Amino acid sequence: MTKTIAFALYPGCTPLDLVGPLQVLTGLTAFDPSYEVVVAGADTRTPADTDTPLRLLASHTFEQVPRPAVLVVPGGGEPTLAALADESLVGWIREAAPTADVVASVCSGSLLLGAAGLLEGRRATTHWGLRWMLPAFGAEPVAERWVESGPVLTGAGVAAGIDMALHLAARLAGEAVARKIQLMIEYDPEPPLGGIDWDSPDIAGFGPMFDEMVRTALADQPALLARVTERTGPAAGDPR
Amino acid sequence: MTKTIAFALYPGCTPLDLVGPLQVLTGLTAFDPSYEVVVAGADTRTPADTDTPLRLLASHTFEQVPRPAVLVVPGGGEPTLAALADESLVGWIREAAPTADVVASVCSGSLLLGAAGLLEGRRATTHWGLRWMLPAFGAEPVAERWVESGPVLTGAGVAAGIDMALHLAARLAGEAVARKIQLMIEYDPEPPLGGIDWDSPDIAGFGPMFDEMVRTALADQPALLARVTERTGPAAGDPR
Repeated sequence: MTKTIAFALYPGCTPLDLVGPLQVLTGLTAFDPSYEVVVAGADTRTPADTDTPLRLLASHTFEQVPRPAVLVVPGGGEPTLAALADESLVGWIREAAPTADVVASVCSGSLLLGAAGLLEGRRATTHWGLRWMLPAFGAEPVAERWVESGPVLTGAGVAAGIDMALHLAARLAGEAVARKIQLMIEYDPEPPLGGIDWDSPDIAGFGPMFDEMVRTALADQPALLARVTERTGPAAGDPR
Repeated sequence: MTKTIAFALYPGCTPLDLVGPLQVLTGLTAFDPSYEVVVAGADTRTPADTDTPLRLLASHTFEQVPRPAVLVVPGGGEPTLAALADESLVGWIREAAPTADVVASVCSGSLLLGAAGLLEGRRATTHWGLRWMLPAFGAEPVAERWVESGPVLTGAGVAAGIDMALHLAARLAGEAVARKIQLMIEYDPEPPLGGIDWDSPDIAGFGPMFDEMVRTALADQPALLARVTERTGPAAGDPR
């Protein structure tokens, strides 16, 4: 029986969060036809805006994919935080999770897993600028590129989804297949300015921006805002 | 005056080719509002299929963006090769190029630049599996992550578009801005199995697959097929 890898699509998400792992795991289906990939959204006719000028269309509705073997939830900025209160999305994650082998997220997508109650007592990660929010969902924040905790696999910000998905491909189909996917998408990174300098003064400087983004996105959700701003975790913009 | 960065969208392209640089250069507009980003396609209502289950919608028609300052052309597999004969796309590239400061491509998108006559006498790159095709368009094939030759900037396969776009962001707006974009998309790569091993026996083994892909895609274009299969360059699947 074909196992379904379902990506969640919702308005305002960051397209690279979705498309990085989507390209990797669609590559997986070429080498291992026991998997298929779908993109699930509230409907398949209304394009979802993103935080770029590109609009995206799902291949399936949430209802059409009730029991995926693998779930991948992308993140984003303000719209993702607002989506913490979107029961059509969070409800689908909550209902699909118990029968899934892997529930994965990229970037702030892990907060959606948290809203679905999936991070209680788990180690998890998210975008560095929002890691302080994880304890509000019962999670222990971890500064790693991806974090595995039982069936839950959370990736760090945006581009980390590619690394996480290659790790997942190796787990699902073996290292040889993961290497072939990596070769086909020529993922042999050469960041022109090198890696990120986590000691850069830029980083803490972004803290107030993330804090403000959360407050704006959750202005209509006072209970949720109070919950996440209790701040049991590190401060906004604390990289490590 | 706002300078426009226009991404080309066409049916069957590889979404990561487009979305990697799109996420980077949309990030640029947040730090340098003298730039705007658009996604240009034949029309804005018909979703473009991709080589994944995701469908994409353009924000503008080609006609609406006749003179972008920067052009970015993504690649893909068979549909991109078939698009070498798509005059609505290739004609737009040809007409927009003379007034553009930068004409960029990702992966096999460089072949579309070639079809528009933009690679004559230039060093260029593309996906490793198709680099042998570049001499048919008058280009000298180069095995680098990205290659600059006057206004033409070509990137290697798929994921190379992220590196190329960060380089371009630094060129357009300075290294400090490029570093901020890199931080926001958390591009601090950790490929789980390390980088690509270019000496792997897998690589040459893919040669016949690329050769067959080209022959299938250009079956209806005998003149173009004859031109690209004259093979003045390296063999299909020759990585270096």
